[in-house]
Amino acid sequence: MNEQVDLAEYLFTRLRQLGVDSIHGVPGDYNLQALDYIEPAGINWAGNASELSAGYAADGYGRIKGVSALVTAFGVGELSAINAVGGAYAEMSPVVHIVGTPPMAATEARMCLHHSLGDGNFRLFADMYAKLTVAQANLTDPVTAPSMVDHTLRECILQSRPVYIELPTNMVKARVSARGLKFPIELSIPHNDEGFEDAEVELILARIYASKQPFIIIDGFTAALGIAKEADELVRVTNFPCSTTSFGKGTVNETYTNFFGIYAGEAGKQVYRPWVESCDLILRIGSLYSDVNTYGFSTKTHPKHTIDFNRNTVEIGGTNSFTNAHIKPLLQKILSRLDKSKLPRYDPLPDLGNPRQLLEALPSTSPENLIDQATFWQRISTFFRAGDIILTETGTPSIGGRDFVLPPQTTLINSGIWLSIGYMLGAAQGAALAQRDIIRSLTASPNTTKDASGALIAETPPSTRSSQHTFSGRTILFIGDGSLQMTVQSISDMIRNKLPLTLFVINNDGYTIERFIHGMNAPYNDIQPWKYLLAPQFFGADMDDANYPIVTKQASNYGELWDVVGQKEMQEGKGLTIVEVFMGREDAPDALKKLVASAARRNSGQAQGQAAQQSQSQTHEEVQKNGKAVEPERRPSHEKMIKVSG
Amino acid sequence: MNEQVDLAEYLFTRLRQLGVDSIHGVPGDYNLQALDYIEPAGINWAGNASELSAGYAADGYGRIKGVSALVTAFGVGELSAINAVGGAYAEMSPVVHIVGTPPMAATEARMCLHHSLGDGNFRLFADMYAKLTVAQANLTDPVTAPSMVDHTLRECILQSRPVYIELPTNMVKARVSARGLKFPIELSIPHNDEGFEDAEVELILARIYASKQPFIIIDGFTAALGIAKEADELVRVTNFPCSTTSFGKGTVNETYTNFFGIYAGEAGKQVYRPWVESCDLILRIGSLYSDVNTYGFSTKTHPKHTIDFNRNTVEIGGTNSFTNAHIKPLLQKILSRLDKSKLPRYDPLPDLGNPRQLLEALPSTSPENLIDQATFWQRISTFFRAGDIILTETGTPSIGGRDFVLPPQTTLINSGIWLSIGYMLGAAQGAALAQRDIIRSLTASPNTTKDASGALIAETPPSTRSSQHTFSGRTILFIGDGSLQMTVQSISDMIRNKLPLTLFVINNDGYTIERFIHGMNAPYNDIQPWKYLLAPQFFGADMDDANYPIVTKQASNYGELWDVVGQKEMQEGKGLTIVEVFMGREDAPDALKKLVASAARRNSGQAQGQAAQQSQSQTHEEVQKNGKAVEPERRPSHEKMIKVSG
Repeated sequence: MNEQVDLAEYLFTRLRQLGVDSIHGVPGDYNLQALDYIEPAGINWAGNASELSAGYAADGYGRIKGVSALVTAFGVGELSAINAVGGAYAEMSPVVHIVGTPPMAATEARMCLHHSLGDGNFRLFADMYAKLTVAQANLTDPVTAPSMVDHTLRECILQSRPVYIELPTNMVKARVSARGLKFPIELSIPHNDEGFEDAEVELILARIYASKQPFIIIDGFTAALGIAKEADELVRVTNFPCSTTSFGKGTVNETYTNFFGIYAGEAGKQVYRPWVESCDLILRIGSLYSDVNTYGFSTKTHPKHTIDFNRNTVEIGGTNSFTNAHIKPLLQKILSRLDKSKLPRYDPLPDLGNPRQLLEALPSTSPENLIDQATFWQRISTFFRAGDIILTETGTPSIGGRDFVLPPQTTLINSGIWLSIGYMLGAAQGAALAQRDIIRSLTASPNTTKDASGALIAETPPSTRSSQHTFSGRTILFIGDGSLQMTVQSISDMIRNKLPLTLFVINNDGYTIERFIHGMNAPYNDIQPWKYLLAPQFFGADMDDANYPIVTKQASNYGELWDVVGQKEMQEGKGLTIVEVFMGREDAPDALKKLVASAARRNSGQAQGQAAQQSQSQTHEEVQKNGKAVEPERRPSHEKMIKVSG
Repeated sequence: MNEQVDLAEYLFTRLRQLGVDSIHGVPGDYNLQALDYIEPAGINWAGNASELSAGYAADGYGRIKGVSALVTAFGVGELSAINAVGGAYAEMSPVVHIVGTPPMAATEARMCLHHSLGDGNFRLFADMYAKLTVAQANLTDPVTAPSMVDHTLRECILQSRPVYIELPTNMVKARVSARGLKFPIELSIPHNDEGFEDAEVELILARIYASKQPFIIIDGFTAALGIAKEADELVRVTNFPCSTTSFGKGTVNETYTNFFGIYAGEAGKQVYRPWVESCDLILRIGSLYSDVNTYGFSTKTHPKHTIDFNRNTVEIGGTNSFTNAHIKPLLQKILSRLDKSKLPRYDPLPDLGNPRQLLEALPSTSPENLIDQATFWQRISTFFRAGDIILTETGTPSIGGRDFVLPPQTTLINSGIWLSIGYMLGAAQGAALAQRDIIRSLTASPNTTKDASGALIAETPPSTRSSQHTFSGRTILFIGDGSLQMTVQSISDMIRNKLPLTLFVINNDGYTIERFIHGMNAPYNDIQPWKYLLAPQFFGADMDDANYPIVTKQASNYGELWDVVGQKEMQEGKGLTIVEVFMGREDAPDALKKLVASAARRNSGQAQGQAAQQSQSQTHEEVQKNGKAVEPERRPSHEKMIKVSG
């Protein structure tokens, strides 16, 4: 009972226990002493070139592995990473941000220290972070520190959002009780009240059984809520027509015949929207009602016909709101009680456009055909295979990527609301590292098998975030040139960590998405034209390392594209491959043009009238949804809260 | 009187009137419409590759030109830049940060928009910025917008700190009164109360006349306070032994025989500290009492013997504090009334080590001698000439650069408290652009002449920030490898804007300053070894442009160094030159070793005892100084405020 460890050892041991096998960050004064404890805890230090890249990488790592950590210095370091943590908050990625802070005696004396504003206020940055994290701990007391660490890490994982831990330099070696380390951090979800839960389940099942034209929309918070498996099962078992949002794409198995791609409202296929609007039941899971994810709010469904599942709330038909419900056991009970014989059946399934058939119906390409936004995103799908992790950066890739036809057992990372360009390059580094960490532990496990292509198959999904249990080792990023410039250092981080990655750099000569919003030919939408394929050399990659091969290619027509995609290194996903794909500067997916048109209307002179109208026509429930999907605690005060008891 | 203009036109016209000839930033949704107004206002758009680089560049531009502007998008853009704005606040650089925000109807409806957290709160980022800016304006009303713009810009310049302006997309074209544009923004400093000022002046003069061993320390806020000219004159006229701090280096003419380099307390020459501590009068101007700038607080002088001049306060002998005094007219009155015959005279001046003589006394180098931290910084001084702008990044350059022997009419930019590595690369881009903007307007002026080397000489200093009126066109940066990696995009920004710059990249294989603080051989202090000289190619420079020549060289011994330094392009400062200077990984200036030793003591186990002791032994005045030098309004509440009337 008297066993003690240094506080930093406690912290990093806890992180390792939770599944943090690698930590992102940048060394700096006030955190160096803590960094000494990372390797001894069995954790790999990624050593990023910048804090923003480190923050984005930690976010990407968290989305794959279910937990992640980031270490920065006080003040300068943490502020450079704050945009990344804001994104992790907005999009629900579990990142533990550890800040090395000045020694307590110095802060208590309000000393004029470097990395502060010099005004004696050492709470300023923590105050900022309190707005972007769901729990905070300032570890100033050896007695309380272990439980504060445990509490903070628990909130990170259960809420799937960033937390903030301050570790003063003088506390790194503070001796704390090691007792807690013998027990895992309590992460179980409390049971729902049985009677209450039963009533909810029966109410929902009754709605499902009574429906004539049901539809399912799986959204992007599903993974964060830890219910990806249940969502996938719901789609499979009911055989209801199903779609995802852009943000939620990849969450369910897209080879199901009842999967109909992304429902894109006014930006999608003509046939889709009227059909959805005539549905009498729409089951939505893990919703994010942002402008971009709802295609200008056009995919909202009538509350009367909607059952909306989120972390702690279920809204049924716009009038009944269950709060304080734990959604995972609730969904599990629905699935276990579901009587398939009572389910409405489609025979045949509606013709909403089967993505796989649409891909097969595309005319084949001639080698000399230029690469076009209209079909590239569909065509490149033939490159994907089970076990891949795929990321699409905001811009033409995020919108184009909605046309991907994904194999089962793939993960897609796409931004649903934060849309910070540059994010995806760092996130790709973090995702690749997470995949490698998963593969390393799978390789060590006797229960791991392999599929025909050599992808590892785990017995059960190794991350709480997804139902993926097949891992190809490949991490594939699609990113525009302007975005890549934002965080190009991440390529150095990839090389330093010898991470296998395939980067498709879409070179369309500037910020094409901005051009479509405003200023098609404005010089401010131009960028400096880089020689992207020089990146590995510039960043000091060993160009002759057989264990980490570097491949760089350009492709401006389909012949060149299929050539490079067929290469062994790309197929295997070994080493670093960069493919510079040239596309027209004013070419964009059709959906992007439609999406930005609505944003442009809002931004411009037409804005006030249109937005005000939208606002006035919104029901209370709709307004509430804007806030609710993200943060139940922050709902506007005019929210209606209706509890229905058994 | 009824003349009206679009609000964005009003804003950018005002900025142009104040001297903003170039604006830094990144386009993004919510700011694109505003960017349309930049070029028509006669302002150049720098078009940065990342917001952090843009923010640092804006800070650098402001330090040279006396005012600067930065445009980012809401949320993601502004958070990526917030570290830079924090630095501008801490170190007093006047940056106008303009954020393009969502349309008001959307924010009022709390819509779930991209770049927000999705919780309907659109004030979050503005609230964060309120802590790092001295004035804020949210331009939501066409009637008040012009005066809010004027007020905010005035505070930016008068307080020499960042301000924050939100411009909703729907307000860009709002018609506002143009009347104000006919009159310049009122920037004059109010007169001090004559009687009060006279009393202060006489009190100070009496102390000066009565002193036996006076000493002057010019610190880094002097330029920000707009009193560089007065400080320089005080040094020249009194002929008192004078030093600067690291942060203040370059503020006064270093060729004065009474200039004795940087007073570095315990990190400096043995002879210096006892001599200063035996002085009976120390005049300090523009003080920043940070740990690094005071070499672990060891350059603090006894309050009883100190007269400390800051923006609105003068402290005399530790007991008298004048507040609400305007320092510039006060100093001018002191200078105008100064009776030279009453001044104490040194004959000879004390032997504190004349930097120029020390440089001349250095043994000459053989070509094969390796480049060493101990003498490089002195030796490279022969490369400098009047009119240069020189920047030293935090790390070995900032500490090494204290040994520079500067010609007159040079500006040195060095970080005094924020110490955010990566800052200086962006700041160099901004400083070079500011110098080019100055030179362009000087070239157009009939009163501009040239010196022998071709440097332009203005009739009066064109910036309120310094007494520099000679401009060589050369901007010279010294930066370590780890720092460069943080913001390497800034090199792309330099190339895009075809800015003349000379970069000395100190390649010492990692974060050497961190190694000295903690973890000399720790892997976390390693970095990925880049091929720095490939940067121009990677960033798409035209390698054959005679108007913008690109020179890249390596130097590991003095022979190679003097070869490259002698090249025509470097002497002229035309184009972009990158010199990779190899130095030992564990080599550091002696002062750095001493400085970090005190920081390491504070951070480590010895921290509490030592810092607490320091805290206890501090007088109230000393504690007060920690906060006061930076922000009078934020003084700790226990501060003594003594007013002395006539």
